[in-house]
Amino acid sequence: MLALRLIERKRDGGRVDAGELRALANAYAAGHVPDYQMAAFLMACFLRGLDRAETHALTEAMLQSGESLDLAYLGRPRIDKHSTGGVGDKVSIVLAPLIASLGVAVPMMSGRGLGHTGGTLDKLESIPGFETSLSLEQAKAQLETLNCALIGQTQEIAPADRKMYALRDATGTVESIPLIAASIMSKKLAEGLTGLVLDVKRGSGAFLPELERGLELASTMIELGADHGCPVVAMITAMDRPLGRACGNALEVEESIAALRGEGPPDLMSVTYALGAEMLVLAEVATDVEAARRMMEIAIGTGRAAEHFQKIIEAQGGNPAVVDDPALLPQSHEVELFAAPRRGFVARVEPRVVGRGITALGGGRTTMDDKLDLAVGFVITARPGDWVEQGEPLATIFARDRAGVESGRATLRSAIIIADEADPPLPLVSHRVTSAGVELLVQA
Amino acid sequence: MLALRLIERKRDGGRVDAGELRALANAYAAGHVPDYQMAAFLMACFLRGLDRAETHALTEAMLQSGESLDLAYLGRPRIDKHSTGGVGDKVSIVLAPLIASLGVAVPMMSGRGLGHTGGTLDKLESIPGFETSLSLEQAKAQLETLNCALIGQTQEIAPADRKMYALRDATGTVESIPLIAASIMSKKLAEGLTGLVLDVKRGSGAFLPELERGLELASTMIELGADHGCPVVAMITAMDRPLGRACGNALEVEESIAALRGEGPPDLMSVTYALGAEMLVLAEVATDVEAARRMMEIAIGTGRAAEHFQKIIEAQGGNPAVVDDPALLPQSHEVELFAAPRRGFVARVEPRVVGRGITALGGGRTTMDDKLDLAVGFVITARPGDWVEQGEPLATIFARDRAGVESGRATLRSAIIIADEADPPLPLVSHRVTSAGVELLVQA
Repeated sequence: MLALRLIERKRDGGRVDAGELRALANAYAAGHVPDYQMAAFLMACFLRGLDRAETHALTEAMLQSGESLDLAYLGRPRIDKHSTGGVGDKVSIVLAPLIASLGVAVPMMSGRGLGHTGGTLDKLESIPGFETSLSLEQAKAQLETLNCALIGQTQEIAPADRKMYALRDATGTVESIPLIAASIMSKKLAEGLTGLVLDVKRGSGAFLPELERGLELASTMIELGADHGCPVVAMITAMDRPLGRACGNALEVEESIAALRGEGPPDLMSVTYALGAEMLVLAEVATDVEAARRMMEIAIGTGRAAEHFQKIIEAQGGNPAVVDDPALLPQSHEVELFAAPRRGFVARVEPRVVGRGITALGGGRTTMDDKLDLAVGFVITARPGDWVEQGEPLATIFARDRAGVESGRATLRSAIIIADEADPPLPLVSHRVTSAGVELLVQA
Repeated sequence: MLALRLIERKRDGGRVDAGELRALANAYAAGHVPDYQMAAFLMACFLRGLDRAETHALTEAMLQSGESLDLAYLGRPRIDKHSTGGVGDKVSIVLAPLIASLGVAVPMMSGRGLGHTGGTLDKLESIPGFETSLSLEQAKAQLETLNCALIGQTQEIAPADRKMYALRDATGTVESIPLIAASIMSKKLAEGLTGLVLDVKRGSGAFLPELERGLELASTMIELGADHGCPVVAMITAMDRPLGRACGNALEVEESIAALRGEGPPDLMSVTYALGAEMLVLAEVATDVEAARRMMEIAIGTGRAAEHFQKIIEAQGGNPAVVDDPALLPQSHEVELFAAPRRGFVARVEPRVVGRGITALGGGRTTMDDKLDLAVGFVITARPGDWVEQGEPLATIFARDRAGVESGRATLRSAIIIADEADPPLPLVSHRVTSAGVELLVQA
């Protein structure tokens, strides 16, 4: 009867209090409330909204449905980074070892790819032997020795969120700011952090393409963090084109390794440094972003960051030799260049089309049960604004077979738009949001 | 994938076309679309609405998910009456034999009680032996011989609606005008009618208490009927107090038998005659409502209507002697008068309180699996506007045991409000709605 009462109240635009949301989340996690009632409730929340107190209570309810990491005993700052997801976004794989190598604990719990976006866990599993399903105890031990564990959401963490997220995915109730914010923050707050940096994507390839909605999501998550004494800084970054050049699981790991050696593409390095600097300042190991940036450049320049990644790979059962020899990563049978069909400006490289193209090649999921081909994907060297001549290579297609190459060609033909003129792309890192407000970093 | 796409489109305020709705309804009826997706879709429909074309398509989809009665071979007009439900509303039990006795086929498919409202099937089953679950073939044979079959929604009729209605009941998506209209009309159109009379209740005990919403429901159903060549007339009637005196299953059958003998309470007779007249005019066996009324008075006065009920009871396995001796109906152990706690005007007799009170006595359902005590209930003689003295009998309580009597007293204490003044109740039959528009029958 509780579920029906709360459905009707939310449907009619009323409020649900903290105790009721906790009871509902617990009853749902325990299987006492059926999926169909929760689905109706979530749709009512989607369309009627949740106010700040409700969003806080829902976060709290999902957080308390499971266990939390108590990492205070580490005696070190504990900072994580979370991205709202995009195409070619491998920043986590670069940042986690880089920041961990600088004495900050990074308890990074990541997800799998779904829809057009990739997932850090899938990418990491392209490293032969790499194991992402550690227990909480194993993760804690590794955080003590290496400052970093790269793991999936365990059974113990926010089980109500895990179950609810799968249901939202199947019922059209994903793109709701309070539901997204509560879902992310319930998991992040369970990591026992002393600070969190959010990468909120905007542009056509983002979950929430509009800047206004991204800013609203950022401030909602900042408020939820503040409620739990966890300072949160959010950066608004561009997802109107893929980030970096590599799009596809193993290809992105290879590009991440290059980035850890200082050889990553400029846009990937810029976003990595911008987010990493905020992590180091939040951790109080750097006094300002300039100092933080120098620390990261040194860690990369001396090879310490790449070596740290090697140690993490080894600790999680993977083959550390991939860092020196990326050819040990899964390779595609078919590799072909994609040439510009005409001369002109690169007007757009559409991330959603690229992301769906990876799925078409077998490298992405349409359901959680899909088995992935981790080798396939694209390396797209053309950037929006570039002038290209007809026949000039724009990208490389990595496919399992000839059919894949054809599918890849079709993808790139619709993803890469060449025109007589091109509007400037979105600025890469445009806004910094904290509890103090929104800071504009570049003139748009 | 279809379900998710339609959920998202409706969620965002878009339209769903006829082919899509048919595919969704069929996939749902066949178990290929899970309840949780349908629940999210229904909540999106509830909050975003369905336009006329969508409501038509949904009705059509549910109608076509099952079989229809083809009754043209009867060579007689086929008219049904449907009420949106209330407390003490036993009009169907009076009208079906009455109109059938006048040469009109009445293929009456009814429902069970749920929530505060009673159900015709439950009431009929208080007649010893009476069987409401006839097959379509049995119903057709009985329509041929007796012009009437009193049955439940069979497995063959609108299975998508049956499944969807149960889901709506559990997910807070009942009170939506297009969903209500499509649900009712998909069943009624499957009856192969040549006309339909709707009794749309208004007032505090109605599903949709507001007149405006009742009128909207009426015109939606009239349009759906017109789309299928089935003329529909809707009457707006009062449900701010129970209809008639008896409230409870066997008690209402007893009052229905009295009405068939011309001894029913005046309000019940008025509503019965008003709806019956529309049925006879739609059937073209009467030229106008005055003539129709005279036909009904004669059928009742000569005993033909009551005799016809006897034949129907006998045909459906029940004991026809109840018509002459209502004491053969289930009787309560405890029968007690309820006296006025003070002098004054009867200001209100609240139908929802009475309806929930019947459920508390064991005579109503909170879930579809509840087993009913058909004997219990109330006979409430006090009418809004009556002047009563302290200690004067207002009602009789029929209960299983002493605890039931106490529960009944508590119900009546809060249901019957006595005050120093009383506003006039709603007019009993206030509006007549046809495809030509709304006709006001009394000055409010």
